[in-house]
Amino acid sequence: MAEIYASVDLGGTNIACIFAGADGRVVGEKKAPTQSHEGPQAVLARIAELVNCLAAEYGNKPAALGMGIPGLADLKSGVTKFLPNLPTQWRDVPVRGVLAPKVGCPVYLLNDVRMATLGELVFGHGRTSRTMAFFALGTGIGGGVVVDGKLRLGPLGAAGELGHQTILPDGPQCGCGSRGCLETLASGPAITAEGVRLMLSGLAPKLYELVRGETSAITPKEMAAAAEAGDARVKEAIVRAARYLGIGVANVVTILHPDLIVLGGGVAAIGPLLFDTVRATVRERVGMFPTDDIAIKPSLLGERAGALGGIALAMKGGLLPD
Amino acid sequence: MAEIYASVDLGGTNIACIFAGADGRVVGEKKAPTQSHEGPQAVLARIAELVNCLAAEYGNKPAALGMGIPGLADLKSGVTKFLPNLPTQWRDVPVRGVLAPKVGCPVYLLNDVRMATLGELVFGHGRTSRTMAFFALGTGIGGGVVVDGKLRLGPLGAAGELGHQTILPDGPQCGCGSRGCLETLASGPAITAEGVRLMLSGLAPKLYELVRGETSAITPKEMAAAAEAGDARVKEAIVRAARYLGIGVANVVTILHPDLIVLGGGVAAIGPLLFDTVRATVRERVGMFPTDDIAIKPSLLGERAGALGGIALAMKGGLLPD
Repeated sequence: MAEIYASVDLGGTNIACIFAGADGRVVGEKKAPTQSHEGPQAVLARIAELVNCLAAEYGNKPAALGMGIPGLADLKSGVTKFLPNLPTQWRDVPVRGVLAPKVGCPVYLLNDVRMATLGELVFGHGRTSRTMAFFALGTGIGGGVVVDGKLRLGPLGAAGELGHQTILPDGPQCGCGSRGCLETLASGPAITAEGVRLMLSGLAPKLYELVRGETSAITPKEMAAAAEAGDARVKEAIVRAARYLGIGVANVVTILHPDLIVLGGGVAAIGPLLFDTVRATVRERVGMFPTDDIAIKPSLLGERAGALGGIALAMKGGLLPD
Repeated sequence: MAEIYASVDLGGTNIACIFAGADGRVVGEKKAPTQSHEGPQAVLARIAELVNCLAAEYGNKPAALGMGIPGLADLKSGVTKFLPNLPTQWRDVPVRGVLAPKVGCPVYLLNDVRMATLGELVFGHGRTSRTMAFFALGTGIGGGVVVDGKLRLGPLGAAGELGHQTILPDGPQCGCGSRGCLETLASGPAITAEGVRLMLSGLAPKLYELVRGETSAITPKEMAAAAEAGDARVKEAIVRAARYLGIGVANVVTILHPDLIVLGGGVAAIGPLLFDTVRATVRERVGMFPTDDIAIKPSLLGERAGALGGIALAMKGGLLPD
């Protein structure tokens, strides 16, 4: 029986667990709500339950477990450090130490977006790339950078924070403490906030129809549909955000000259209007060398990039900081 | 007799040639005006003369020659490609093919600022660094990036163009075709232009004294002296440029988490006002991880970074694109 690996993606809302082989073929999958307010011990017990349940179904324990966390961990010890979106009691939790005996295999941690980048590298578009950057465009903007085939981690596993480049020096306040970060201009909430404003100002009639006037139903994808249906102001809002994103991409291109840029996360669901604007902005902004050969693509793995990154992490026996 | 290496730095104004051993000890040095209007053949003949003259003085031919060019070359063939500051006839010049027989040793090309980065890596502060970025702050802003001990070149030798990050999306027109690049805000000319304006507006009395009213004598260093002597508006102008530079540095830190940032070139002569402002800006702008361990330093090699980079390039037998 071939070895099987487990992956857990710990999010603020959900825990996603998969089992897959070394070829990335998924053989089992389970989800559960995180309920982080119950505290780390309860959540880790729930994770162990998911893993053990999948192991029972599959008939074999995993050889190793790769786990993505929304923040930073000490990669050597598997202890959490800085998790901005979880309650403070999540700091300094020895996740590896607690979880490994419960699941009966080694546990390796990594930042969730770096893990998704690893997934794209090992099982996605990155297979044919040497140097790439992954932008995870969701509630925040996370990132990961691969240089010459190696995921760049830096000394704290914190390199690759592509969403926290400054794009507008005097721009909106960012959760990270700085101002005008890419995340404040092109994340899901940044884009939908403008959709809400336009709809409430009567400037987005198609969007109003699509979401039946429900502001909470507005997503970047719905806004793209409204733009397509004729909402010119909504289209402008998307193009503005995509231009800012294009500047962030162009900066990475100028610094590293990668052959591949992958745009993942919910904002990427906007589709061609986003990708075409980003591509045009990169052409405009990178004046020092031709950029025609640089592919700018949606994630090949989509929502599974993180989960499959966990499989890759487990197969590699974890990653150490640079 | 130990092997000796030669280095040539081809600038728009001067050609600088040195001979040095594998330890970086310089044993001979010559300069000549470039006079690029005479055309590549004449300039290459002049370079060969400098090299052969130093070889005669030293009593031995160099084992190899590393040559920095202000632009891009095909690193495999040693043919020039894009040299924005030299006349167009400098495009597609087979420098290696022409020069190697004249000097009697192999010739290796590299972009001049990537060569200076290599110098700092092999003989300067980079010796104790794993990942660093070099900002060459002169007439333009060039750069070089070292990741895990390896100078990043990209497929065209064009990676590391740190001066062409966008800092102000609607900022001043840049020579590269984009707008608001770091180079338009913090290069020597960007800073001195504001010094000239302030002096001509009567807002820089100390600067006026220092340069005796001669606008052409204004340099970033003179402006630093005027700021120190009490010209508050000149100080503001320097701090503004240094903050933009700090944003460019912070972007690189956020993306790569290097352990070392080296600031070289004439603008670095501003000294503590520049460095302290850059350090403060990096602290403000990088919110995702602590930056206290990241050294931000002037070049250890100063004006010799490029020349010694050529020695390192010669010793390595050239570099190939990534």
